[in-house]
Amino acid sequence: MEINETTFRVRYAETDQMGVVYYANYFVWMELGRVEYCRSIGVRYRDMEQQDGVLLAVIDAQCRYRRPARYDDEVTVRTWVFASTRKAVEFSYEMYVREELIASGRTKHMFLGRDFRPVSLPVKYHAMFGVRERA
Amino acid sequence: MEINETTFRVRYAETDQMGVVYYANYFVWMELGRVEYCRSIGVRYRDMEQQDGVLLAVIDAQCRYRRPARYDDEVTVRTWVFASTRKAVEFSYEMYVREELIASGRTKHMFLGRDFRPVSLPVKYHAMFGVRERA
Amino acid sequence: MEINETTFRVRYAETDQMGVVYYANYFVWMELGRVEYCRSIGVRYRDMEQQDGVLLAVIDAQCRYRRPARYDDEVTVRTWVFASTRKAVEFSYEMYVREELIASGRTKHMFLGRDFRPVSLPVKYHAMFGVRERA
Amino acid sequence: MEINETTFRVRYAETDQMGVVYYANYFVWMELGRVEYCRSIGVRYRDMEQQDGVLLAVIDAQCRYRRPARYDDEVTVRTWVFASTRKAVEFSYEMYVREELIASGRTKHMFLGRDFRPVSLPVKYHAMFGVRERA
Repeated sequence: MEINETTFRVRYAETDQMGVVYYANYFVWMELGRVEYCRSIGVRYRDMEQQDGVLLAVIDAQCRYRRPARYDDEVTVRTWVFASTRKAVEFSYEMYVREELIASGRTKHMFLGRDFRPVSLPVKYHAMFGVRERA
Repeated sequence: MEINETTFRVRYAETDQMGVVYYANYFVWMELGRVEYCRSIGVRYRDMEQQDGVLLAVIDAQCRYRRPARYDDEVTVRTWVFASTRKAVEFSYEMYVREELIASGRTKHMFLGRDFRPVSLPVKYHAMFGVRERA
Repeated sequence: MEINETTFRVRYAETDQMGVVYYANYFVWMELGRVEYCRSIGVRYRDMEQQDGVLLAVIDAQCRYRRPARYDDEVTVRTWVFASTRKAVEFSYEMYVREELIASGRTKHMFLGRDFRPVSLPVKYHAMFGVRERA
Repeated sequence: MEINETTFRVRYAETDQMGVVYYANYFVWMELGRVEYCRSIGVRYRDMEQQDGVLLAVIDAQCRYRRPARYDDEVTVRTWVFASTRKAVEFSYEMYVREELIASGRTKHMFLGRDFRPVSLPVKYHAMFGVRERA
């Protein structure tokens, strides 16, 4: 199983008046993890969208918050594929600050074409996303 | 059971290059629903935070996406308390565009004091959030 | 001269750890003012983009901040066209909380086609944006 | 004159339905440049706020947009102090994609204390921000 780790700093813009990161921004961080996961397995998501017309449309997203993240913290997102078929993929995420788990999450996506209708993931991406071929 | 409905238009800033609303923004909309729910039951969240020092810290958040929302759509968020104790509250949300359900979600919150430690919800808020008193 | 006023509440998501609204969000508010200005003169910006393929691309934006806006404040944005030609339009904005001016701004936009090349504003929009016809 | 360069990738969340980066996000990038500029001269902005109670409150911000930035582009922000006194500082910014200037900006800030009243920049920061001492 491929696991990607990507690290960045918390932006001032991401905090709210509670003095910690606003909760919706963790989903932006999952996007960063997802994109870097794709890059690490050889898929540039930008190309997948532009050249192959395959969109990863979110159908479900969840986050559990354990400890707050603060401005200027270095956050590491660990991302992996939890499950995948030719129709959909599910990513899992863990977010760390100073090696302490601060949040975990998951997102489910359907593969859509440019017309927003479901498509099967092109074969060239199967192995990368861990899609098993049928016998 | 109290249900609040609040309506607003999708902002250009909330869209992404897929031409639809970016998925993290639905959690901002849940915040809008939550705040208006509180206002409708007589609680101004700003006062609860400033005067009573009670913070509603998110510990879990989830969203299911059914249909995309688009720029300039009028979105209605229906918000209600799904469960509540003196320690925590769980909100449920449904989001509609032209009376069609586009997404549903839920958020769980702990009540924290200004020092970020758990507190019991002050008694004056119990009835409003539907907290049952002990026998 | 047409002036539009639109009012909304500050979102929790718009604050930062300084306890006030993060500075970039004032430009989102200008967008809200601009869109409602357009609606008030009979132009739905969404249609202008989709049906006529005319984009309002920002080329310059400025904001002066006088007093901070805070969570749950009611903000009124006053928007008007400061100058316009068939190639470009400049909007001015004033933002108020409790009738006190908290910020002022302006944005300049070029009219672009779907290919991101400059276009002349279609004649049907001239009067609305105050574009003077040539003799 | 100290000039800081910091580089990051455009996030999907930062795009809008025009397929390019939403204009308000350039001001978030200026914040990233500003913070990294401070770090490069030995000031951790987080500490300046927390330990010395000095806030950099924006009073004016401007951006000129030359070419659109797109999802996944690598953006480099060049940041320097354009002018500074014991009361205020002005930063200048240039933003590049593939060595092409895509935008330039500036922000003016007053130094405020925790009570949001103007303060003089503590002497220990004078040299770093290029504040000239009086004879």
